Amino acid sequence: MATYIHRRQLTVEWGQCDPAGIVFNPRFFEMFDVSTWQLIQTLLGVPQQDFSAAFHVVGAPLVDARANFLKPARFGDTIEIASRIADVRRTSFDIEHRISIGGELAVDGGETRVWAVRDAGDPDRIRAVAIPADVAERFAA
Amino acid sequence: MATYIHRRQLTVEWGQCDPAGIVFNPRFFEMFDVSTWQLIQTLLGVPQQDFSAAFHVVGAPLVDARANFLKPARFGDTIEIASRIADVRRTSFDIEHRISIGGELAVDGGETRVWAVRDAGDPDRIRAVAIPADVAERFAA
Amino acid sequence: MATYIHRRQLTVEWGQCDPAGIVFNPRFFEMFDVSTWQLIQTLLGVPQQDFSAAFHVVGAPLVDARANFLKPARFGDTIEIASRIADVRRTSFDIEHRISIGGELAVDGGETRVWAVRDAGDPDRIRAVAIPADVAERFAA
Amino acid sequence: MATYIHRRQLTVEWGQCDPAGIVFNPRFFEMFDVSTWQLIQTLLGVPQQDFSAAFHVVGAPLVDARANFLKPARFGDTIEIASRIADVRRTSFDIEHRISIGGELAVDGGETRVWAVRDAGDPDRIRAVAIPADVAERFAA
Repeated sequence: MATYIHRRQLTVEWGQCDPAGIVFNPRFFEMFDVSTWQLIQTLLGVPQQDFSAAFHVVGAPLVDARANFLKPARFGDTIEIASRIADVRRTSFDIEHRISIGGELAVDGGETRVWAVRDAGDPDRIRAVAIPADVAERFAA
Repeated sequence: MATYIHRRQLTVEWGQCDPAGIVFNPRFFEMFDVSTWQLIQTLLGVPQQDFSAAFHVVGAPLVDARANFLKPARFGDTIEIASRIADVRRTSFDIEHRISIGGELAVDGGETRVWAVRDAGDPDRIRAVAIPADVAERFAA
Repeated sequence: MATYIHRRQLTVEWGQCDPAGIVFNPRFFEMFDVSTWQLIQTLLGVPQQDFSAAFHVVGAPLVDARANFLKPARFGDTIEIASRIADVRRTSFDIEHRISIGGELAVDGGETRVWAVRDAGDPDRIRAVAIPADVAERFAA
Repeated sequence: MATYIHRRQLTVEWGQCDPAGIVFNPRFFEMFDVSTWQLIQTLLGVPQQDFSAAFHVVGAPLVDARANFLKPARFGDTIEIASRIADVRRTSFDIEHRISIGGELAVDGGETRVWAVRDAGDPDRIRAVAIPADVAERFAA
C-alpha cells in the first residue's frame, strides 16, 4: 500500500444527481477516473494526454472497477475523494478511491488497471507487459 | 440463480465513447441501471416509477456495483446486455449483467441492491427490511 | 425543408433525470446527436463510424446547437424524437429535432453542422468545403 | 447587460471527450448549468439547493439553451468559463456563457430561464411570475 494519498474536493452538482436527489452511481466512476489520472500525474510527473507516448503504452486500460455505496452523496454536498495506489503487481496495479462526506466514508471504490502495449502481431489487440521498475517504485512510494 | 434472463441490444453511441474510441467505463454502469429496472419490471410487473409506492420502499438502493472489462466495446458495436437475478438474500439481492459483442463476453458486471424503507425514527436514514416472500419468489424464478 | 423524417421512441431513464424528476437538459443534446447520425445513415446509407472515410471529411462538426424547452420530460415518459434536415446550404446544413410526449411538443431543437476537411497546410485546423451535389440532393429529399 | 462576470477554470477530462478527442457538445451544457448556479449563488447569496425555498419558486426552469462552437476544446485543455446575466425581463432572464481556451473564444453559449411557481390550480403545471425587484436589481448589477 502506497502512502501517498491524492485528495480533491468537489461539490455535488445538480446534473450528477438522480430523482432521489443523490449522486447517480455512474458519476462516482467518472470521479474515480479523473482522480486516478491526477494521482498518476502527481506520482509520475506526466499528464494523462502524454502518458501513452511517454511510456510507450496504450494508456492504462481499466480491467476492473468496483464500489461500495455506504451512504448517499446529496446534491450540494461537499465530498472529498482520497485516492492511492493500493497494490502494484508485475503487469497491473490497483487504485483505491475513498469518498467521504463530513469526515464519514460514503463510497469505498477501487480500480484495477494494466500496463499494456499494442500487440505487434495484431494491432487490434493489447497485451499486458511488465510495469517498468521505476514506475513501480514511484507507484509504491 | 434465477433462470429468467432479460436481454436487450444496443448500438454503442459516439457520445458513450472516449478518445480511445471505446465505451467509457461509467457508461456501462448506466446501462446496468437501466437493465436492472427493466428486469425488475418484467419480474414484478411494476415499472420503476411506481416501484416505491407499490412496495412501500425507497427504491432498491444500490450498495455495491462492480465490473470486469474483458474486451473493449467500440463505437458502432452492437452489444447485448443479459441480466438476471443472481442471488436473493433476506434483505438484499444481486443482479448479474453480462455484456457480449458478437457472442463474446466483453463486460462481466454485477450489482447488489437492498430492500429498504425510510427509518421511522430518522427520515434521513434508510433501513434494510426483509424482501417480501412473493417478491423473493418471483426474483428466484 | 426535407420531407423525410427520422423517428425513434425512447423511455426516459432514471439516470437521465435530475432531482426535479425531469430530463436534465444536456441529455436532450445527447439524444439529438444520436438521432442526427441515424438520420444521416438513413439518408446516405453510411453509418457514422464509416462516414469520414466514405466522404473524405472529418465528420460533420457541430457548429451550433439550440433547444427550446416547452414542457418537461419526466422519468418514465415515452418520448418521440422526430428529426429532419431543415436546410442545406453550400457548406453547412441544419437538422431539426422535435421531441414530443403524448403527441405534444416538449422540446424544439436544432443543430447546424458543416462539411469539413482537415486543412492541408495546418492539420490542426479544419476547413468547410462544399457539400457534394449527390449528398445535398439526398439531404433535401 | 450586467457587469459582474463569474469565472471558473476547468481542465477538460478524458470522460468529457468523444472519439475525436474533443469535448462532446452536451458536456458544455452541463458546464453551463453549473456556472449558472454558481453565478446565481454569488449574486443572490443563496446556494442552488436552497433557492426554491428562499424565493418560493420551482427553481429557475430552463426554457432555452444554445451554443455556438467556434473551436474545439481538446482533452487536457485548460478552459475558462465566463458567465454573466445578459438580460433581465419581467419574468425571465438570460445568462451568457463564454468558454475560452488560451484567451481565444471557443464556445459562445446562452441560457434563458424563467422565474416560476407551481400553479395553484394544477400542481403539475408551472407558471412564470414577475422576478422580484431586489432580485432583478442584483441580476442587473
